[in-house]
Amino acid sequence: MNFLEERIVKDGIVKEGNVLKVDSFLNHQMDIHLFEQMGEEFKRRFKDKPINKILTIEASGIGIACIVAKYFNAPVVFAKKTKSINIEGEMYIAEVESFTHKCKNQVIVSKKFLSPDDHVLIIDDFLANGEAASGAIRLLTEAGASIAGVGILIEKSFQPGRDKLIAQGVDVYSLARVSRLAKGVIEFIPEEC
Amino acid sequence: MNFLEERIVKDGIVKEGNVLKVDSFLNHQMDIHLFEQMGEEFKRRFKDKPINKILTIEASGIGIACIVAKYFNAPVVFAKKTKSINIEGEMYIAEVESFTHKCKNQVIVSKKFLSPDDHVLIIDDFLANGEAASGAIRLLTEAGASIAGVGILIEKSFQPGRDKLIAQGVDVYSLARVSRLAKGVIEFIPEEC
Repeated sequence: MNFLEERIVKDGIVKEGNVLKVDSFLNHQMDIHLFEQMGEEFKRRFKDKPINKILTIEASGIGIACIVAKYFNAPVVFAKKTKSINIEGEMYIAEVESFTHKCKNQVIVSKKFLSPDDHVLIIDDFLANGEAASGAIRLLTEAGASIAGVGILIEKSFQPGRDKLIAQGVDVYSLARVSRLAKGVIEFIPEEC
Repeated sequence: MNFLEERIVKDGIVKEGNVLKVDSFLNHQMDIHLFEQMGEEFKRRFKDKPINKILTIEASGIGIACIVAKYFNAPVVFAKKTKSINIEGEMYIAEVESFTHKCKNQVIVSKKFLSPDDHVLIIDDFLANGEAASGAIRLLTEAGASIAGVGILIEKSFQPGRDKLIAQGVDVYSLARVSRLAKGVIEFIPEEC
């Protein structure tokens, strides 16, 4: 097991409905030392790509995206989930269904911050049905930007998200790939080399 | 002018209604190098306080809170704006009015992540009417935690937020204190020493 898998086993809680709660270290309270380890690991994995921007979707991806961005010396752009009065002008818009909240959201990015010159690493905390990552990919495709890859903290490998992304030719790297969740049981797919 | 004030003058855009747009470097696209400079500055200012936790409110405070947290070697807790199916159990709840979105939200934090042992630095991007920071203070007061201070990136000093917080005995430090916004004009209150 790698450092994240060990932490999930130690502090993650499995709830009914294939819900894995990691709110004590990932998405409500955030362990910044762990985030730095994850940033280093994404840098190792994607070091050969000319990444100049990190894209995530609010809200729980923002923290890890900012720490990862340090390792790539790149700015973060986060797609917003609702139209704010502070966003104006031309926007890229994609519709995304939330597995967690059982609803559809529009995610939007100002056209000022994505262009055909960008090589973008998408960072998100969870990959399950692949809706958020697919929305991010549609935003980047519309902008004509290059998709350098998708970096995920926890993948629910028993859901179709990873396959959907790979079918689009996207390079997906998940730090922890959960193959099975049951009461008291968290199993992982062995990590890639 | 300090580094943040210089950046605001260079890249900030003043809009009608006292709106200062800083979305190219602070709250839509995020300049992580700038965030690190801000983290260093908060550490310098609050170094004598026994801070063991950073609290912010989603979404635009999360990025800067995570970078600031590195300098305090502390975890971040972010208050969530809506009830998620992934938050359960006992919660601290405060009502907060949004200046930007003209609406009221409940902000909530799981009771697991705030306790009387905590010395908490509140971090947020903007201080205007002080609603978000006051909500965070109510959460901390309910938890019995110590409020080490409030660290703000941009304060609109012509609005009552700062005075509201100081009246509660809270130590407020804003990196940029905007005294006047008008078409083509951004004026600052000289920084504290």
